[in-house]
Amino acid sequence: MSRKIYVFDTTLRDGEQVPGAKLNLAEKLEVAEQIAKMKVDMMEVGFPSSSQGDFEAVQAISRKIGKDVWIAALGRAVQADIDCIYESIRVAENPLIHIVLGSSDVHVAKKFRKTPEQVIEMGVGAVKYARSLLPQVQYSLEDASRSEFEYLWQTIEAVVKAGATIINVPDTVGFAIPEQFGKLIYRINDRLKNLDPKVMLSVHCHNDTGLATANTLAAVKNGADKVECTINGIGERAGNTALEEVVMGIQLHEAYYGGHTMVDTRQIYETSRMVSATMGLDIQVNKAITGENAFAHSSGIHQDGLLKSKDVYEIMDPETIGAPAMEIVLTARSGRHAFMHVTQRLGFDIPAESVAEIYQQFLTMADAKKEIYDNDVLTLLKNSGVPSRGNSPELWQLVDYELNVTSGLPAATVKLARGEKEVMISHNGSGVIDALYGAIMEAVGTPIELIDYRINSLSRGKGSLGKVTAQIRCDDQLFSGKAIEQDVMRASALALINAVNKMLLK
Amino acid sequence: MSRKIYVFDTTLRDGEQVPGAKLNLAEKLEVAEQIAKMKVDMMEVGFPSSSQGDFEAVQAISRKIGKDVWIAALGRAVQADIDCIYESIRVAENPLIHIVLGSSDVHVAKKFRKTPEQVIEMGVGAVKYARSLLPQVQYSLEDASRSEFEYLWQTIEAVVKAGATIINVPDTVGFAIPEQFGKLIYRINDRLKNLDPKVMLSVHCHNDTGLATANTLAAVKNGADKVECTINGIGERAGNTALEEVVMGIQLHEAYYGGHTMVDTRQIYETSRMVSATMGLDIQVNKAITGENAFAHSSGIHQDGLLKSKDVYEIMDPETIGAPAMEIVLTARSGRHAFMHVTQRLGFDIPAESVAEIYQQFLTMADAKKEIYDNDVLTLLKNSGVPSRGNSPELWQLVDYELNVTSGLPAATVKLARGEKEVMISHNGSGVIDALYGAIMEAVGTPIELIDYRINSLSRGKGSLGKVTAQIRCDDQLFSGKAIEQDVMRASALALINAVNKMLLK
Repeated sequence: MSRKIYVFDTTLRDGEQVPGAKLNLAEKLEVAEQIAKMKVDMMEVGFPSSSQGDFEAVQAISRKIGKDVWIAALGRAVQADIDCIYESIRVAENPLIHIVLGSSDVHVAKKFRKTPEQVIEMGVGAVKYARSLLPQVQYSLEDASRSEFEYLWQTIEAVVKAGATIINVPDTVGFAIPEQFGKLIYRINDRLKNLDPKVMLSVHCHNDTGLATANTLAAVKNGADKVECTINGIGERAGNTALEEVVMGIQLHEAYYGGHTMVDTRQIYETSRMVSATMGLDIQVNKAITGENAFAHSSGIHQDGLLKSKDVYEIMDPETIGAPAMEIVLTARSGRHAFMHVTQRLGFDIPAESVAEIYQQFLTMADAKKEIYDNDVLTLLKNSGVPSRGNSPELWQLVDYELNVTSGLPAATVKLARGEKEVMISHNGSGVIDALYGAIMEAVGTPIELIDYRINSLSRGKGSLGKVTAQIRCDDQLFSGKAIEQDVMRASALALINAVNKMLLK
Repeated sequence: MSRKIYVFDTTLRDGEQVPGAKLNLAEKLEVAEQIAKMKVDMMEVGFPSSSQGDFEAVQAISRKIGKDVWIAALGRAVQADIDCIYESIRVAENPLIHIVLGSSDVHVAKKFRKTPEQVIEMGVGAVKYARSLLPQVQYSLEDASRSEFEYLWQTIEAVVKAGATIINVPDTVGFAIPEQFGKLIYRINDRLKNLDPKVMLSVHCHNDTGLATANTLAAVKNGADKVECTINGIGERAGNTALEEVVMGIQLHEAYYGGHTMVDTRQIYETSRMVSATMGLDIQVNKAITGENAFAHSSGIHQDGLLKSKDVYEIMDPETIGAPAMEIVLTARSGRHAFMHVTQRLGFDIPAESVAEIYQQFLTMADAKKEIYDNDVLTLLKNSGVPSRGNSPELWQLVDYELNVTSGLPAATVKLARGEKEVMISHNGSGVIDALYGAIMEAVGTPIELIDYRINSLSRGKGSLGKVTAQIRCDDQLFSGKAIEQDVMRASALALINAVNKMLLK
């Protein structure tokens, strides 16, 4: 039987340290609840002695979800920090005090200006004090992967004897190599399990050289009981180990790792999107597991292979992580089959005799616009006079729009059409997008909530194209629309309309 | 002496397959020249039989930079594809024909619907034909990591005997584990070097489970002579192995890998930015090596450690990859030291008696705005009546702006101030940003070129903040400005003005 690997999420502590990613209390609680819903075992939620705001957030999370998941908070090896941690997490059912102290030469000599023995003494004192307050204490040997092994072990032995219940081995600067890090964990685990088999061995990796996931998995293979990670791999500099990569890596190769986690993988996608949106940290499209393209296929060869058999190019079903079904993105490389797939979804059956001509028009359009979205296909089909199927819903189209910002008073007017009907609405807002979206939402008339809005510029310079993504929620379902135009305002309007149309097609 | 590891860049072939990333001929040439400047050994630049455009681009690149670097192009194991490759790359000094054919059960049975023997026969025929045209032929065993080993070897043996000069082992679906992939490469290399020591062994990994870099490096450790990668790890789905991660990984641990590459690492940053901007593929801030935060530090502990000694938290100097010096980003977690650093750079010496009060105002502002940029600091200092140093240049500030878009005719009016001087300019453009930026550039009066423009939304919903990044070029130097505001148009204006001010401070 495979052993359980404990998953410790530190999105709200190490992840939140990213410049600009700081959340307010309500946002922190929302994210914490979602992470708990994903069923991690432990969650680190702050550094209570760093600010009053952090203290209050840790306390609020401990109260709200301290029953479902272990709550950890970080501090330095000093009494004041440990007191702060204790006060903020004591209401949780399984509170965990996390103490961090450097162990490498460069930390000991340059950062602390102490002798190695003095540093061990500090650590032992801190652990003893923490254990006098709570039963679970984790000790992190900062910069462990660059530390001298016997000194590292000497520290571990001392703090375990002082009462530490979890030993955490960080690769603080992301310098480790999987094979070597695996061996380090093997050596530590070997001695640690002889010293006290109840003590848990944990790892915490950073991604400076792109190896955080590999180092973490190598540690699991070599005896680590617990992994520390963040959603989307966010964190200081190049970030931490990505939770979704480690969890899916273990699940895909359970026999190899001889372990499993209790994470509900179907919550990964929603958690990833929430963390990205609330912290304002975009996920690159080619991010493993959670990137927008992670399950997308565009090349001719791959789309063709997929149509014959999914497992030719797909090792994971997007549903496993709760992601929407795989999308075939229309580009100049898409075949006729893929194009027809989209037109049918939009409710159009192209007469057989027109297919070749319309597909050719599509290719011309795709060459100019890079990616082709629903509004483009709709325009193409309308212009070609293809009627929609009788039983499919009429979709919204943008007829015209006007924007006006005078001395900070933004206003927008839109004219939308749906079949024969035309609607014109004016609206103001706190910014132009706010005004524009207010007008479109009023015109559409269905109660929808804007969840995410992003603009990316494609290609450089003044003639560049803007790509806008808008995600809306309606009746607890999410719909995403995209558009590419030279004018970002027009792209913004079309992206929202595309999302609304997706909702109508459901 | 360490052996040379050949770097094969496929940004313009496998990378360009990303939905929406297709480049036009001029852009392809620009990127190809930059990649050649980075001194990769080989460059794959297209799939000539896939379209006339691809064919012409491959030919143009072969002509232009075919003297500096090997030029490769891809095709299937059929004569028509190979003819296309030959015609497009023959003018290069070192042309390389790259043939790809599946080798796993799922590929052979489901995609090709052939017997294993028939597939080998196809491969042998293709290699023989290719070798009759050119001296260098690479054979890729698609999905090799999921193939049965003896069948894989049987294929390799057959195609090497038929004349293949490079054998490429792809982990096509990103399923491999570093330890196992390393062993696979070791086994192949062992037999291959016995069969024909002149044949080069290559690997090509995908990042579906976040292990592309680790798998590639494990292969290097186990005998691979050549690595295939893309800039920023772009590519189909979760992308390919990131060139910058593999190159820097080998450089940081040269003794361990017993190898080195000839890449000029100081060109990595510029190449990464160019690929991102021309293909419209944003790099996430925590991307290893090339992300915007890869060398940034924001937490109190880390900023403090850094001020004491750089090597506490920095394993690579940003200059090694040609990146601007490490930036300490101002947030609510920044200490007084970091804040003073920025005010001095902007040309202000805060009187000692006011420091505490102004720092407190900064913290209040940082709590509300998440990240604090130059224009915010300028506003804060002006409001506090701090005079700028006599010898520092006056900087531009935004006084007011107005936007108007009527029936597709966008126009903008801006009022800027510099010291006592005020300038007001109106401008139209192809979109609102174009109009706004035209007006600001005219007001500023210095010839500058807009290189990159990006908007990210921070936090969800209608009250969300927009973060804008604008990069400009002036006298061949790059300057980047950022701003965060609720109104993305205001943020856009401020980001450009911040970039202009950075230029004035140089």
